Amino acid sequence: MKRFALLSALALALAARADEGMWTFDNFPSKKVQQKYGFAPDAAWLQAAQLSSVRLAGGCSGSFVSPDGLVMTNHHCAHSCIEQLSTKDKDFVAEGFYAPLAENEVKCPEIELNQLVQITDITAQIQGATKGLKPGKEFNDKRKAAMASVEKDCAAGNDKLRCDVVELYHGGQYSLYRYKRFQDVRLVFAPELAIAFFGGDPDNFNFPRYDLDVSFIRAYEDGKPARTEHYFKFSPDGAKEGDLTFVSGQPGGTDRELTMAELQYQRDVALPERLFDLAQYRGALTMYTRQSAEHHRTAEPTLFGVENSFKALKGRFEALVAPALWNQKAQRERTLREKVNARSSLKKKYGGAWDEVAKAMADFQPRRKEYRFIEQGTGFNSPLYRIARDLVRGTEELRKANGERLREYTDAKLPQLKQKLFSKAPIYEEFEAFKLAYGLTRLRENLGADHPFVKKVLGKKSPEELAQELAQTKLYDVKMREQLWQAGREAVLASSDPMIQLAKLVDPDARAIRKWHDEEIETLEISGAEKIAAAKFELEGKSNYPDATFTLRLSYGAVKGYDENGRHVSPITTFAGAFERATGRDPFKLPESWLRASENHQVNTATPLNMCTTNDIIGGNSGSPVFDKDRQIVGLVFDGNIQSLGGDYGFDETVNRTVAVHSAALIEALDHIYGAKRIVSELKAAPGTAASAGAK
Amino acid sequence: MKRFALLSALALALAARADEGMWTFDNFPSKKVQQKYGFAPDAAWLQAAQLSSVRLAGGCSGSFVSPDGLVMTNHHCAHSCIEQLSTKDKDFVAEGFYAPLAENEVKCPEIELNQLVQITDITAQIQGATKGLKPGKEFNDKRKAAMASVEKDCAAGNDKLRCDVVELYHGGQYSLYRYKRFQDVRLVFAPELAIAFFGGDPDNFNFPRYDLDVSFIRAYEDGKPARTEHYFKFSPDGAKEGDLTFVSGQPGGTDRELTMAELQYQRDVALPERLFDLAQYRGALTMYTRQSAEHHRTAEPTLFGVENSFKALKGRFEALVAPALWNQKAQRERTLREKVNARSSLKKKYGGAWDEVAKAMADFQPRRKEYRFIEQGTGFNSPLYRIARDLVRGTEELRKANGERLREYTDAKLPQLKQKLFSKAPIYEEFEAFKLAYGLTRLRENLGADHPFVKKVLGKKSPEELAQELAQTKLYDVKMREQLWQAGREAVLASSDPMIQLAKLVDPDARAIRKWHDEEIETLEISGAEKIAAAKFELEGKSNYPDATFTLRLSYGAVKGYDENGRHVSPITTFAGAFERATGRDPFKLPESWLRASENHQVNTATPLNMCTTNDIIGGNSGSPVFDKDRQIVGLVFDGNIQSLGGDYGFDETVNRTVAVHSAALIEALDHIYGAKRIVSELKAAPGTAASAGAK
Repeated sequence: MKRFALLSALALALAARADEGMWTFDNFPSKKVQQKYGFAPDAAWLQAAQLSSVRLAGGCSGSFVSPDGLVMTNHHCAHSCIEQLSTKDKDFVAEGFYAPLAENEVKCPEIELNQLVQITDITAQIQGATKGLKPGKEFNDKRKAAMASVEKDCAAGNDKLRCDVVELYHGGQYSLYRYKRFQDVRLVFAPELAIAFFGGDPDNFNFPRYDLDVSFIRAYEDGKPARTEHYFKFSPDGAKEGDLTFVSGQPGGTDRELTMAELQYQRDVALPERLFDLAQYRGALTMYTRQSAEHHRTAEPTLFGVENSFKALKGRFEALVAPALWNQKAQRERTLREKVNARSSLKKKYGGAWDEVAKAMADFQPRRKEYRFIEQGTGFNSPLYRIARDLVRGTEELRKANGERLREYTDAKLPQLKQKLFSKAPIYEEFEAFKLAYGLTRLRENLGADHPFVKKVLGKKSPEELAQELAQTKLYDVKMREQLWQAGREAVLASSDPMIQLAKLVDPDARAIRKWHDEEIETLEISGAEKIAAAKFELEGKSNYPDATFTLRLSYGAVKGYDENGRHVSPITTFAGAFERATGRDPFKLPESWLRASENHQVNTATPLNMCTTNDIIGGNSGSPVFDKDRQIVGLVFDGNIQSLGGDYGFDETVNRTVAVHSAALIEALDHIYGAKRIVSELKAAPGTAASAGAK
Repeated sequence: MKRFALLSALALALAARADEGMWTFDNFPSKKVQQKYGFAPDAAWLQAAQLSSVRLAGGCSGSFVSPDGLVMTNHHCAHSCIEQLSTKDKDFVAEGFYAPLAENEVKCPEIELNQLVQITDITAQIQGATKGLKPGKEFNDKRKAAMASVEKDCAAGNDKLRCDVVELYHGGQYSLYRYKRFQDVRLVFAPELAIAFFGGDPDNFNFPRYDLDVSFIRAYEDGKPARTEHYFKFSPDGAKEGDLTFVSGQPGGTDRELTMAELQYQRDVALPERLFDLAQYRGALTMYTRQSAEHHRTAEPTLFGVENSFKALKGRFEALVAPALWNQKAQRERTLREKVNARSSLKKKYGGAWDEVAKAMADFQPRRKEYRFIEQGTGFNSPLYRIARDLVRGTEELRKANGERLREYTDAKLPQLKQKLFSKAPIYEEFEAFKLAYGLTRLRENLGADHPFVKKVLGKKSPEELAQELAQTKLYDVKMREQLWQAGREAVLASSDPMIQLAKLVDPDARAIRKWHDEEIETLEISGAEKIAAAKFELEGKSNYPDATFTLRLSYGAVKGYDENGRHVSPITTFAGAFERATGRDPFKLPESWLRASENHQVNTATPLNMCTTNDIIGGNSGSPVFDKDRQIVGLVFDGNIQSLGGDYGFDETVNRTVAVHSAALIEALDHIYGAKRIVSELKAAPGTAASAGAK
């Protein structure tokens, strides 16, 4: 027993010293940081960092970097916008974009920014709504209604506010996150894709790295640059090896607290199936993008997303099949269950929780494909379908009371829904026909040619034939979408548009399986997870951070290399490295601007380009600022190394690394390669203001 | 204990009654068949069946069905040949092929047939060669030499004989299989792909089914149809539900006896990785085949193979992640190890065997990708590369003594090697460039852009660029291959052909990793597996069948339906079902010939078309005859149902089914749809002769 205790204490000590955690701003472990790095962020510091951070609602992070609403994020976070603003004749993805004057900044059709202004604990309110209820319909109805009500009251009909109920610790805690919302967001600067994503898929998730994965966008209010009191100033020197670094941003999701039943479902079913899908789609898309320059231009952002997801999920899969992690997690669950079962009060309240979650997994498995292909729309792989469905479903849902609607159609969700629904982003008929044929083929393959739903959708048509018909929809026309939405349910139902017809045909089946999922599966999982979280709180207090949920988190760490295959990987690369690595062939082809700058000796090739740090991040953190204890920008997160992919399940400080553009590289390139003087001045003008803003 | 014993007895009783097993002809359980079906094949019956069966060396099964060398197999087994004989202007895959006269039969460039004439147990000889040796170089050298020597002595320089050392029970037994070899094989009949593979990939591995997956080819000797004394006659009536059925053929491989360490490697590493690869390749190939009619014609057999493998391996993966099977296997291994460890004599000899196998798996894993991509050629995805490599490696190996060569270049292997190397099958430059670019991209992705081998191969070139250069090789020209092979090592080394240059560049690395694999990994695995097999023999005798090894096996069963999703699936379909299922759209589009025959009421649509039986088969059994106790053909195996895919790891008689074309369908279609009177006469003329042949 003594040896065990000693080991435990040691393990705890080690754990306490690791730079682990994606901490909420209202529960940041300043003491831990103090112990390890000699600096403890205080409340004012934390608030300033929070207000200087920003979320891209579509799935990224960013930061305010000037008092005039200038936002720094990744190129790949604005990639869709850059592509949407491009045309056959002007390809900003390939050529880059720079607005030398304020009036040259162009509106991105689909970017929404969220600045987190307030966090409120509403656990009692949400958990109270389902108190004493068994998993099932009433549980789901009451919970949904409670969340919708809180969100609606908070936003109070003001579209400039966004209020989200955030489920933390898998239901152990509920918080209300109130954001300031910006929907007028304009593109300011983006380099060429060739340097933003130098090394392409082969180098993605790798380090050493040589990418300038940056873009600048700007938040507007009432047609003018937004006044942003809180923002990060740029560090004059940037970071060097060993420096303490903070990263704020929105990690999209982690699965560190899942039960073994959930992990087993991920390892054996969900991840492999998604990977098979992604791999095949990747193969098809790659060929599609090569068929013509126009195919390349219109489909390439989708391909990037698919390749990125494939690599990320493959890393997760590989982490789960590694016996060490698996056994460690199994052991941890066993220990927790033993502790719960050892106390009769705990056992009574929480003992059955793991079996509830396991039952949810087991019950879901046989119908998982129907849920994915029919309700989640995997079989109808096109924004046109999603538009048609929002028209069909949305106009029906809007006739219900707010609390009774499907979550995505509640009043609080409408501004984001409408931005997407009425987006002017171009949709390309040929690409849509391709994607639809692909999705319909996969639908038939996954549910089987004899599945009643498949027969209902395809009839005697081939997937290609139906896809061609569907691609004739008139929903490319934003005005038509607006008219139908305004006209409401009856007008939508009367439409003879082929895509709306399809959405109408699909909806009853989709709703049926959604209802089953939400009431029978989801409530069971939540019910179990809430209990497990509560058991942990009772036994361990709130000493831990919750799994990531695409909400604002803060992580701490340091610029630090690591060992790989017996070699030490140094944490900082330089411009010189990029020139050495270049082959002149895509994806290792540097853009003309870089080659010219090098020839003309405009660029200092000793300037740091990328760096890696021990911050604990994951997908969704793309675009996050890396800043020092003075809240000065020292980098821009754009990736994690390959070892970080297992970070979905646990953090291993020895090898898990955040990969960022060094702040010096940003200034060097803007100034000496792109001549983007206006941005450089804006970034450099900031210090004084920022310091005073931070003091508030 | 009593309850456990009772359960075991019950399980054994059930196992004994299941139609499980791919039995070697020298250890067929006639008594079991007698007990269940009231018929016991005797030695003469077995020998006649053996000699009437035939192997397609490329990976299929078949049977002699006339005294003039006529062989029945699947369309998909001759698919490559049919494509190779086609041209831009005449597509036999789409249109079908029929030689109305003997002189219209056309030679297949790459089909080799093997008729098994003798089985000899040589266990003592092979195991004796490594007796007392530790796994490693000497073990590998001695074993390889022993096998090469036995094979060479057996064939005695006669190319019409083929002798293979067959490793059974994973090294527990070695047999020498002596075959009569036919390399002049000609195409006689093939229907249109649209009916051979009706339902395409969506219906593949499904039942009920409606395919006429047949082709007839003919073995020739000295330019004339071979005289084949032993052959199967056609049943006048075919089989009906409940009838006893036999299947002889070459199941390609099963993994029923693998250790848990091997299974875990398959489940967690090997199968997922191959599936990711296949899925992506499938996506790319599908797009490639759609780019033009010529792309479709030249790439479609490859796509079929990829889709088929993907579905088969996915079924295997799904079987391995099912907890019931996994736990059962783990339990079985535990029990066996306990039994071994319980007796000190056994423990001493065999106790460490499982750890040896586990170590082989663990050691292999970190270098698995190098082995696959460098040595197994996954990075050089083209027959042109394989030709270049055979020239580079083969001419070097031939200078060594027979016993010292790599196994695939021993004297006994040369006839098959040369058939492939000097094949006149067309190779299409555009398709090769596509495949090479694909393979090289995957090579870079899997080993990493910074791997020294990748840098050595690609230099600063992109995969596409190098692929284009390589596709300029002159190795399309068969004469040039022959000349280089004749001229030998120095001439090959002096060649400036780009593909030969590549093969030369790759060979040192490939040989190094091959040597490591063969000496360090393979010998460890064999050493362990031999001991496990020996332990089983000591404890259980030879009461079981060995895992499949693409050698002749016999299975027994019956025509029988099964239950699926609560419905009973009837075991026989009819022509009417095919007409009902047709949508007029590929892959559910019936060929013109069928539509015409139906319109003209030439075809009796009540005729049975496909059937399913409880025979235990697996991939490689394609083309196997299904025959009754009188050794009359009642069907032609072409598939298994989806539940049969788990058969790689174990047989579940409740749902595992062989899928076959009913014999009545073959006659009906040949006679009334294709007017292939010459074949019908040949098949029907046979009864008397066959009966007398069988009596020998």
